[in-house]
Amino acid sequence: MKKITIVGAGRVGETTAQILAEEELCREVALFDVREDVPEGIALDIVQTAPFFEFDCAVHGSNDPRILKDSDLVIVAAGFPRKPGMSRADVLESNIRVIDEVTDHIMAYAPETMVLMVSNPVDTLTYRVAQRTGWSRNRVFGQAGVLDASRMASFIAQETGFSARDITTMVLGGHGDTMVPVPRFCTINGVPLSYFLPEDRVEAIMERTRKGGAEILALRKNSSAYDAPGAAVAAMVDAIVNNRRRLLPCVALLEGEYGEADIAMGVPCVLGEKGVESILELELNEREQADFTQSANAVRSEIERLRDIQ
Amino acid sequence: MKKITIVGAGRVGETTAQILAEEELCREVALFDVREDVPEGIALDIVQTAPFFEFDCAVHGSNDPRILKDSDLVIVAAGFPRKPGMSRADVLESNIRVIDEVTDHIMAYAPETMVLMVSNPVDTLTYRVAQRTGWSRNRVFGQAGVLDASRMASFIAQETGFSARDITTMVLGGHGDTMVPVPRFCTINGVPLSYFLPEDRVEAIMERTRKGGAEILALRKNSSAYDAPGAAVAAMVDAIVNNRRRLLPCVALLEGEYGEADIAMGVPCVLGEKGVESILELELNEREQADFTQSANAVRSEIERLRDIQ
Amino acid sequence: MKKITIVGAGRVGETTAQILAEEELCREVALFDVREDVPEGIALDIVQTAPFFEFDCAVHGSNDPRILKDSDLVIVAAGFPRKPGMSRADVLESNIRVIDEVTDHIMAYAPETMVLMVSNPVDTLTYRVAQRTGWSRNRVFGQAGVLDASRMASFIAQETGFSARDITTMVLGGHGDTMVPVPRFCTINGVPLSYFLPEDRVEAIMERTRKGGAEILALRKNSSAYDAPGAAVAAMVDAIVNNRRRLLPCVALLEGEYGEADIAMGVPCVLGEKGVESILELELNEREQADFTQSANAVRSEIERLRDIQ
Amino acid sequence: MKKITIVGAGRVGETTAQILAEEELCREVALFDVREDVPEGIALDIVQTAPFFEFDCAVHGSNDPRILKDSDLVIVAAGFPRKPGMSRADVLESNIRVIDEVTDHIMAYAPETMVLMVSNPVDTLTYRVAQRTGWSRNRVFGQAGVLDASRMASFIAQETGFSARDITTMVLGGHGDTMVPVPRFCTINGVPLSYFLPEDRVEAIMERTRKGGAEILALRKNSSAYDAPGAAVAAMVDAIVNNRRRLLPCVALLEGEYGEADIAMGVPCVLGEKGVESILELELNEREQADFTQSANAVRSEIERLRDIQ
Repeated sequence: MKKITIVGAGRVGETTAQILAEEELCREVALFDVREDVPEGIALDIVQTAPFFEFDCAVHGSNDPRILKDSDLVIVAAGFPRKPGMSRADVLESNIRVIDEVTDHIMAYAPETMVLMVSNPVDTLTYRVAQRTGWSRNRVFGQAGVLDASRMASFIAQETGFSARDITTMVLGGHGDTMVPVPRFCTINGVPLSYFLPEDRVEAIMERTRKGGAEILALRKNSSAYDAPGAAVAAMVDAIVNNRRRLLPCVALLEGEYGEADIAMGVPCVLGEKGVESILELELNEREQADFTQSANAVRSEIERLRDIQ
Repeated sequence: MKKITIVGAGRVGETTAQILAEEELCREVALFDVREDVPEGIALDIVQTAPFFEFDCAVHGSNDPRILKDSDLVIVAAGFPRKPGMSRADVLESNIRVIDEVTDHIMAYAPETMVLMVSNPVDTLTYRVAQRTGWSRNRVFGQAGVLDASRMASFIAQETGFSARDITTMVLGGHGDTMVPVPRFCTINGVPLSYFLPEDRVEAIMERTRKGGAEILALRKNSSAYDAPGAAVAAMVDAIVNNRRRLLPCVALLEGEYGEADIAMGVPCVLGEKGVESILELELNEREQADFTQSANAVRSEIERLRDIQ
Repeated sequence: MKKITIVGAGRVGETTAQILAEEELCREVALFDVREDVPEGIALDIVQTAPFFEFDCAVHGSNDPRILKDSDLVIVAAGFPRKPGMSRADVLESNIRVIDEVTDHIMAYAPETMVLMVSNPVDTLTYRVAQRTGWSRNRVFGQAGVLDASRMASFIAQETGFSARDITTMVLGGHGDTMVPVPRFCTINGVPLSYFLPEDRVEAIMERTRKGGAEILALRKNSSAYDAPGAAVAAMVDAIVNNRRRLLPCVALLEGEYGEADIAMGVPCVLGEKGVESILELELNEREQADFTQSANAVRSEIERLRDIQ
Repeated sequence: MKKITIVGAGRVGETTAQILAEEELCREVALFDVREDVPEGIALDIVQTAPFFEFDCAVHGSNDPRILKDSDLVIVAAGFPRKPGMSRADVLESNIRVIDEVTDHIMAYAPETMVLMVSNPVDTLTYRVAQRTGWSRNRVFGQAGVLDASRMASFIAQETGFSARDITTMVLGGHGDTMVPVPRFCTINGVPLSYFLPEDRVEAIMERTRKGGAEILALRKNSSAYDAPGAAVAAMVDAIVNNRRRLLPCVALLEGEYGEADIAMGVPCVLGEKGVESILELELNEREQADFTQSANAVRSEIERLRDIQ
């Protein structure tokens, strides 16, 4: 991949840019941000790590949306951050205009690009960008479950003492309090979690996962999480750039899968060089399906609210 | 970890040494081999890769068993290789005297070391070394299932098109034609294999896995496999050196687990800085248990044959 | 190395912690900070990247200085950050009491540790810690030239178009406007810079290097640089942990080297598992020596000012 | 880069293939070899390391030259290996027909590819391929000095105790006993070697470098070096694939540079995505130029001998 542009040089955007450069996932990382000088300053700080990480990836920043030109992938991490006490939904109104404007820039300057949404509320904003662009669903998708799954995995590692390398987790649904961790597909080197932890501990981990973002925010106080979010975005980019065809939970537009349509939310996808190449429809059990439907309803009501904002 | 000695500078030993050095899994890699000059030559070739992989790990070789001194871990990859047409068992007789002598060297020069057996037939030879040393079972163990599982994973990757990163497999039992792949614990990002492949394809992959070593030997003709075996050994060393507490199938001495005792064979273990820290006793279903018992019987008959060799 | 504690969970401290964990440079990273909850929040965010970077390094944070116990290395990145318009010297007064208190904690809880100073003004504060602890100079040293050199290297890469991998630079002296880039020891794959750039371009790069920190601060506005500083600290830790015996510019206590004594400033050192194992006394030419002496004088006057602060 | 084909699945070819796959330097590695089954066997062994190194690069082998189709880069490592007592020149005659046939395959199936020559005598064979194809010199080049330099660097590391990371060396001229190490451009973190070693030790290291291949061969006995040669080739591929514009010694066709023309030999080149993008003409001192001319004469006489072989 030649060029990736990150819109929004906040903490998540910066962390993502650093990892993309370090891992040389493209030849050029561009940072677009409305704040004067800041994207240039961040780019320079990152470039000065090149002698340590031995990368030759170019990194630069600008306030000019024309920096989006020739992007193969645009990562949208712009928007006002969540403050303590705010729900992900609360940030919707303040962000919707920002995202619409960003979408217009993308359509103008990078009409062939893929778009990876990170800004919250991610399900709703992914839906919004898909609607506004009218692009096919493989090209417009979002990050949510990859991060939620990594949080759940780290909780399991802590609880069981097993290596993070051997722990696999799956979290579906909307990226909020109704998210759906699926312990049936959570394993330690292939062995289901239920072999290692009693049900009440699994439930506790599921609950902590649902509140994972809020937990960090409450501790960090003046900042949301960004280390793990940035790494999660980079993992998705890696799957795309290297055409890995990984099975990862992505925020994708549903057209009947899991009984839902006209909505974007977290489902297991095959992620490769064309973006979301397909959606895997796993047979869910009764509780999982009920939780999924409840989560879909929560996302849908947010989407409804957004229809009124023009 | 300070020092790791590899006994036997054949292809597997050399490949292992290269990876240990590249990944800086210890400060010093020593190669012990009876062939004159050869271990020194291999060590020198490996050392000359340091400027590329940027490692500062020392590598040296010798014909003198005193090179074993101060080893924290000894990897035994010595012995005559399997030739086309030979079973793993056929190589037993020619190798037993080699291994006994190596064991005596280890006891003399590195009495506190852990021992990781690689030479074939690995189950029987691990048992032999455990008997001869009398050391506790956490310190004497072997590599088999990590390799067999990687073969199975690569077959699944090829068949399904999914990334090797997302595929987890488990292979237990003896390291031969009776090995026991457990498809129930084989997953693609946590989702059981049965969601992706019909039963007959899974059976075919299991069968190909059991014959995995012979397939390579038949193609390579004048050499057994060594790229994947070396990488498998290095993966175990990594788990030990970094105290990962990974859940990996290792050749371990059984004391009643899975209904077997006085035998060494592949079972799921927790591998950390103390070696095999514990054996995980998974509940097997009927077929799995039958296959496991059959495999145990095959290993046991080999061990019996070995009792007659003094 | 078992445990590394980072004092000060600001941006540089956090970035350093993330890299130490990612690269598994120790088994445990501890973050000590006086702000309530914040070090715990940062540690949690970092831990949640473990599934991506596949590390098993523990990371935790605390407000309790007892977290320093059993540290093999303490990295001091505490103190009030430099704000736009402030010189490195301006931050001295506000930071000296912080550092003295940190030093007392270190002496109380980790009396055998090495100390790597990062807080600014780093030369003066390294001197202060050395004085207060009375520890031998191999154990108390600072980061400055590794960062300055990486900045210079990235400027050269930009100017010449050559890979960052092939560019080597050296910057000595105090870590401020009087720092001493030594172009004679700046090379592109071993070939001196003068083969590639005219003198005026080299001078311009030297000048930009001296102002490198201020340039980032002016752009970022509400934050000093931290991506490259964190990576620079991690590079020094890597040299120590892996006993590389790298030749790196470190802030070290001088005892007559380069004609200076009773001062700490940047000189070429051999960095290995014992810390600053030796100081390399390169023959400087007339201009270099004059610049070095001028830089020493600047540091010395700062040290004088500090004597009055009790 | 999409596809790289390695011609000749001997030890160097195999080692190179393993590294290309591990480091994911392309999407597909193809191994072409005339021996039946062997390239398939090697490819399979390498593919089975994917779960360890986590690569998704395809690797396959064939006896059919059509496997060359769509290669972006062809690495030629075919030919009969050097046996103990043979000079690199001795292998010329036996290899020339092999290489001509390979060249014809390349022209037929991959007419747009770059060609990286590894087979020995590499200078002469690079010249031969350039002549036979008539392709521009940026596309046809060889590996020699990158390996020789890594040998010299490892000798210096051993002698001085400094990290391999900090040692830079340069070796020009023909890849044989007349090769030209240039100690003036050999540095430890930018500081010339003469600061660290007396002249006689430098001379000894230069001499050992010139005989570096023979030293390994004499020790290994039934095999030339391949660990470091494979890594050297991979380092060149990395520079090309990532468009690093590294300054590396390559075997290149000279058109007047260094006073030579109508010859291929080792000179400092800028290596990037277009292959040898330019040749850097360093000012040599009297001794260096004399050694270079002598080396050119040795290569030229070999080229002369080759003209008689049709």
